[in-house]
Amino acid sequence: MPSKFSMRRLTYASKALREFLSTFKLEPTKTEKIQVSNALKRVLAEDIIASRDIPPFDRAALDGYAIRAEDSFGASEYNPIRLRVIGESIIGKSFDGYVNHGEAVKIHTGAPIPQGANSVIMVEFTRSFGNEIEIYRSVAPNSNISRKGEDVKAGETVIKKGIRLESFDLALIKGLGYTEVKVRTPPKVAFFACGDELVDPHNIGELKPGKILETNREMLKHLVTEWGGEPIDLGILKDDEEEIKSKFEYAIKIADIAISIGGTSIGEHDLIPKVVTKLGSPRIVIHGVAVQPGKPVLLANIRNKVLIGLPGYPVSTYVAANLFLRPIIFRLLDLQGIFIPRTIKAIASSRIPSKPGLRSFIRVKLKKKNNQIFAYPISIWGAGILSSLSRADGFLVISEDKEGVEKGEEVDVILLRDFLTGVSYEENF
Amino acid sequence: MPSKFSMRRLTYASKALREFLSTFKLEPTKTEKIQVSNALKRVLAEDIIASRDIPPFDRAALDGYAIRAEDSFGASEYNPIRLRVIGESIIGKSFDGYVNHGEAVKIHTGAPIPQGANSVIMVEFTRSFGNEIEIYRSVAPNSNISRKGEDVKAGETVIKKGIRLESFDLALIKGLGYTEVKVRTPPKVAFFACGDELVDPHNIGELKPGKILETNREMLKHLVTEWGGEPIDLGILKDDEEEIKSKFEYAIKIADIAISIGGTSIGEHDLIPKVVTKLGSPRIVIHGVAVQPGKPVLLANIRNKVLIGLPGYPVSTYVAANLFLRPIIFRLLDLQGIFIPRTIKAIASSRIPSKPGLRSFIRVKLKKKNNQIFAYPISIWGAGILSSLSRADGFLVISEDKEGVEKGEEVDVILLRDFLTGVSYEENF
Repeated sequence: MPSKFSMRRLTYASKALREFLSTFKLEPTKTEKIQVSNALKRVLAEDIIASRDIPPFDRAALDGYAIRAEDSFGASEYNPIRLRVIGESIIGKSFDGYVNHGEAVKIHTGAPIPQGANSVIMVEFTRSFGNEIEIYRSVAPNSNISRKGEDVKAGETVIKKGIRLESFDLALIKGLGYTEVKVRTPPKVAFFACGDELVDPHNIGELKPGKILETNREMLKHLVTEWGGEPIDLGILKDDEEEIKSKFEYAIKIADIAISIGGTSIGEHDLIPKVVTKLGSPRIVIHGVAVQPGKPVLLANIRNKVLIGLPGYPVSTYVAANLFLRPIIFRLLDLQGIFIPRTIKAIASSRIPSKPGLRSFIRVKLKKKNNQIFAYPISIWGAGILSSLSRADGFLVISEDKEGVEKGEEVDVILLRDFLTGVSYEENF
Repeated sequence: MPSKFSMRRLTYASKALREFLSTFKLEPTKTEKIQVSNALKRVLAEDIIASRDIPPFDRAALDGYAIRAEDSFGASEYNPIRLRVIGESIIGKSFDGYVNHGEAVKIHTGAPIPQGANSVIMVEFTRSFGNEIEIYRSVAPNSNISRKGEDVKAGETVIKKGIRLESFDLALIKGLGYTEVKVRTPPKVAFFACGDELVDPHNIGELKPGKILETNREMLKHLVTEWGGEPIDLGILKDDEEEIKSKFEYAIKIADIAISIGGTSIGEHDLIPKVVTKLGSPRIVIHGVAVQPGKPVLLANIRNKVLIGLPGYPVSTYVAANLFLRPIIFRLLDLQGIFIPRTIKAIASSRIPSKPGLRSFIRVKLKKKNNQIFAYPISIWGAGILSSLSRADGFLVISEDKEGVEKGEEVDVILLRDFLTGVSYEENF
């Protein structure tokens, strides 16, 4: 299908996003306090500052005897030194006395170091004789002790705001004694699909000849959720200018991001660009981006709210949402750092052509042959073929400055799932 | 800290898992029917078979005129052919008539192909003269038509059971008219921590000298959730043989997987292995695995239920859970395919030693220098340092047959997050 866009007018994807965002003063969403245990994958909105030391006391790093290091100096197999055992420090129950010159306290890994002692000698280098031990090695001061505060020091910033909280972050925050944590409120993403031919899958009875089931909203809902937003489904609209305009007005009022799906191509029945120009002093910053599929995406700034016109072909919807919606949601969440996609190295099974000047997303299937993973393009399927996403393993991305990849070339494939089927691949974690 | 395990007794991680699983007849969990919209990241437990064609009718792939291809044969700029326009087929409203020889129907992208026509000629190769058009190109039969069923054919298996459902899968399943989908019930994972020194963060008032806050359950709860299991937190236990034994009995009764955290090292106060041997005809299949950290993990088959003794140092807990618990949860979910971790290539900033015979998980921080990403080891921190997980970017994994990596060597780093901070890295999706 030939492009309806003059290539000269197409902006590169990364430039498009940069230009678009430069027209905004986009504030992060509000913050809220929630229970630490409910904060998995939420974005932290405050620095976590340690209110206490972890560990809160000096601990034995191994089983042995807590001693004064000076007492061990000169000890060897041939010159054992005798110390008197005056007690025991076990986990959860410290020894309350004081370790003087010539004394030792039996101690277990993790147990508190008694006062007076400044090192632990490993049990393997000692021998017990009733109330006494012989030691056969010298130890330096501070040996085999986990220092108070060596994990976290009171007053220290341990996690910076802007990260997405993982299991170990929540454990650490709980370990610091916090019960609540301040996180960003999910950005509201309101979307609707437009097209006279579209029928909601819930009204499958209305599926008459010429009509098709609308599925992009289902996909978008889950993508928004995964990326940390709150999806608001505004349903399906007819190709009616007034209806679309008033739905956009509503979406902009209730949400941070307003999205239409479909109707962005340049043609007689393509209403979105037309409607957007009528939304009181709009700025259509971008219409048409140099990506394949996903080209007809529309990005507009409407009174400092984000409006995205996603193309209606499902593969285009998916690619354009990943390229533009995802980073904008991350921006609203004040998420710091760069998103790293799940990728795998593969070898192009054949020459795969692409148009220079376009960033091409080629759907590929991965197969293992002779201990190597090969990428087989399935891009012959049009952008309208929803099932191709479920059937593919990932996207081979060809940058704008390349004219395809050669047969045998090593490529990075961005995976569509966390799992790879059909490839027996050594798990390394 | 020297190992308490004789190296000869340690099993390689992948062999340990294989051996352990070979002692079981592990059945996948039960299945349940749920709403398609609630099935994100759930594991499909039935093949999805298409009940209908997608698209349900032949559609125009571009804007133009639906014609009989034969009528265009021989047409050119110098020899235009005239056809009579008898109607229009637009999206959502098909043309009900029949296209005969010499006739054309104006048609829009996505609109149904009228009966009689067998191709679409692009509008750019035509010119309109009232009720007639001139065409300047010939088109082959079937040109520019999206065929009924080209996305999905009725009766075809479009998604195989055993995959974890993504956004586009759910869109496809809805597009096939399904409202419910059969998925696996999350495996129940019951766990407790043991140690006289441990205090629940909710009872922070009980934190006295010698005591520490217990945080591994918080971490494990979220890991189990992420991996598709249902976490059941059984609290903190004292180092009491009877108490631990009866809690294990309870966990095995109510859950698919029973887990203790801590108390797996070989020492006087290490109760777990001792208790497990008393759990009626147990099979301690593995105790001690050749990984660093995570070595003292214990894997036992108790009456065909999975029992895992996770080591208590938080970094060890994390590594051992990833190595053993995760694949077992995936097995119970009947998840097909290999889990692919999120990795990034980096260059070792220095020589990083590791013990041959152990698979070493080195915590590293990534930094960009001269347009390259370097991995800086922070493994000097012990396995007890929980905050090192939040502060690291990922794990550099050194396999059992290697003695460290050399300075300048290219390595794969398994990321701890989906995001990388401190590295400005070109986003490619």
